[in-house]
Order: sequence, then C-alpha cells, then structure tokens
Amino acid sequence: MREEYQADLVEVSRLLVTMAESVRAALRKATTALLTADLNAAQAVINRDAEVDAVYDQIELKVADTIARQAPVASDLRRVITALHIGADLERMGDLAEHVAKTAARRHPSPAVPAELRPTFKGMAEVADQMAEKITALIAKPNAEGAAQLEKDDDAIDDLERALFKIMLADDWPYGAETAIDGALLGRFYERYADHAVNIGEHLIYLVTGEN
Amino acid sequence: MREEYQADLVEVSRLLVTMAESVRAALRKATTALLTADLNAAQAVINRDAEVDAVYDQIELKVADTIARQAPVASDLRRVITALHIGADLERMGDLAEHVAKTAARRHPSPAVPAELRPTFKGMAEVADQMAEKITALIAKPNAEGAAQLEKDDDAIDDLERALFKIMLADDWPYGAETAIDGALLGRFYERYADHAVNIGEHLIYLVTGEN
Repeated sequence: MREEYQADLVEVSRLLVTMAESVRAALRKATTALLTADLNAAQAVINRDAEVDAVYDQIELKVADTIARQAPVASDLRRVITALHIGADLERMGDLAEHVAKTAARRHPSPAVPAELRPTFKGMAEVADQMAEKITALIAKPNAEGAAQLEKDDDAIDDLERALFKIMLADDWPYGAETAIDGALLGRFYERYADHAVNIGEHLIYLVTGEN
Repeated sequence: MREEYQADLVEVSRLLVTMAESVRAALRKATTALLTADLNAAQAVINRDAEVDAVYDQIELKVADTIARQAPVASDLRRVITALHIGADLERMGDLAEHVAKTAARRHPSPAVPAELRPTFKGMAEVADQMAEKITALIAKPNAEGAAQLEKDDDAIDDLERALFKIMLADDWPYGAETAIDGALLGRFYERYADHAVNIGEHLIYLVTGEN
C-alpha cells in the first residue's frame, strides 16, 4: 500500500505540474493578445481554459480516490489536501489569464492598453511569468526557500501596479474613464494571478515544513 | 464511530455557518462604510477579517482530523472535502468585504462613491446580502433547489454591474478616471462576492445530488 500511495502522490503532482504549465502558457499568450491586439491569441486562451478546469477535476477525483483507498494520516493526509488547495489556486490563475484575453478580445481591433501603459503591463507580465515558472518547478520539487522568494516577486508586481495607477491618475491622463477602467481591472488580474502564485508558495512551505 | 462521524460533520457545518454569518455581516457593514463614508464601520470590517480566517483554520484542522480518525469514503468523504471548498469561498467573500471597507477608508472623509452610483451599489449590496442569507441557511440545511436559485440572484448582480459601467462610460461622466477606477473595482468586489456565493451553491448541489 505504501508503494501505491507514493504512486498516487506522483500522479497528483504530475497533474498539478500540467496545470501550472497550462496557466503559465495561458498568461503568456493572453499578454501577447493584450499588447499586440491579437484576436487569435485571445481566442486560443479563452478556448483552452476548459482544459485547465478538466485537469483540476481529475485532481479532485484522484485525491478523493487516494484518501478513500489509502486512508492517509498526518503528513501524508496533509500532502493530498494541500494538492487540492494548489489546484484551486491554479484554476483561478487560468481564469485570470482568460480575463486578460477577454479584455483584449473585447477591444479588438483597437488595443485595450494605450502605449503609455504597455511597458508597465509588459513588466507585470514578465514577473508573473517568472512566478509561474517557479511554482511549476516547486510543485515538482517543493523547497521552502524557493517558495519564500515568491513574496519578493509579488512585491515587484505590487510596485508595478502602483506605477500603473500613478500614470492613469495623473492630471494629464488623456484617455478618459473607459481606458482607465480597463487598465485598473487588467492591473488587478495580473496582481491576483501573482497573489495565487504566492498562495501556492505558502501551501508548499506548509507541505515541506508543516508550518504556516 | 458512525456517531462520532456525524458529530464531526455537525461541528464542521456549525463552523461554516459561523463563517457565513460573519461574511454576511462584513459586507453589510462595509456597504454602510462605503455609502455613508463611515470610517469606524470600515475599520471594524478590516479588523474583524482575521476572525473569519481563524474560523477557516479551525475548519481545516477539523476536516483533517475527521478524515484521519474516521477514514470516510464515498459520499461521506465528499461531504468533508466539500466543506473545505465552501470554507475557501467564504474566506474569499470576507476578503472582498474587506476590500470594499478599505476603499471606503482610503477615500474618507470623502465618499468613495458619487451620488449617481449610490443606488446601483445599494442594489448590488442588497442582492449580495440576500445571497449571503441564503447560503447561511443552505449550509445549515442543504437543498439543491434553493442552491440553484443563487444563479438568478447572480444574474441580477451582473445586470447591476452592467448598469454601473453604463453610467461611468457615458459621455457626460463628470468625475474623471479616479472615481471611475474606484467604481469599477468596487463593482467587481460585489460581483466576485456573489460569484463565490454561487460557487458555494454548486458545492452544495454536488453534496446533495452527487452531480456537478
């Protein structure tokens, strides 16, 4: 049974890595859609979100099946329950990438983001992408130090979001309310994506150290 | 053991009802803070969010303890895992109420919401409050029909959010980008609060019927 249980955990971990890779690819493509007004890219992200959700359903089934068959306790039980939390965060990251893509699609053929905001969004997207890369590696091989570094990346995202608001709230902002609303909501989508990556880091720290 | 297990479920359910009551009270008070620029109300919501999070921690411990001691399978296992999902949605509803309160506090002593938007926010808050009331009752006594009704409430919230955007995007919107950004983000907080209530409804339907 111990061997079976290990095989179950490996399978759950493999599914989580698949999800993490998908939500990383989704935000990359959504950012391309946003910054280059690329409708095909936007549609591809929107169409593929259901695949991410389907992997999460598989994880839920596998976890329930593992608990039922193996009756894990203590740290073993903690690992499978943590997998559920990580999956839920990844699912939400996929939704947020989809929101970015939908905003790009809604404004197409115009760009949703004016030139003045593009460097800031590019910066947010780059940091978010690095975070997604890190969590993919950490899920495959958890370590508490790597997970704790995600907090610093998140600070960088928060600084960029503040810079974004500063531009939009300047007296000489020329684009009016609609573009400011899009900018604020898009900023929030990237910031929330990063928040969920931090959550995943915290779950992994708990997994490795048993401490919150 | 069967009796112990039932007692565990009753305790988990009691904790979830406590959380639901708290996040309902939080959004009511946050709305008061928002619509009357009441800093004390805003601070009370912000200070109390940690209590909501603490109840969720209790639920997680209780669920882990129940799984470890009772080794539930099939629908019994499903019930305790569903409790975790519901708790996570409630925790997030508490965060969103806190976001509303923080926006009110940030703009104090000015109101964050101009007179033109107040009726719409009042409407969103009323529907959201009814949804929170329903999920509190449904958690205590799940039934699939009641849970399905939450979708209709959510449609009403979405209509109100659209009405909100229509006002802010009109050519004669007099308040500029900052107030529009606040309005859009606040609208999103209420809408997300309602979305999580719908999620809880879906979890409860799954719990009662075994179907997604």
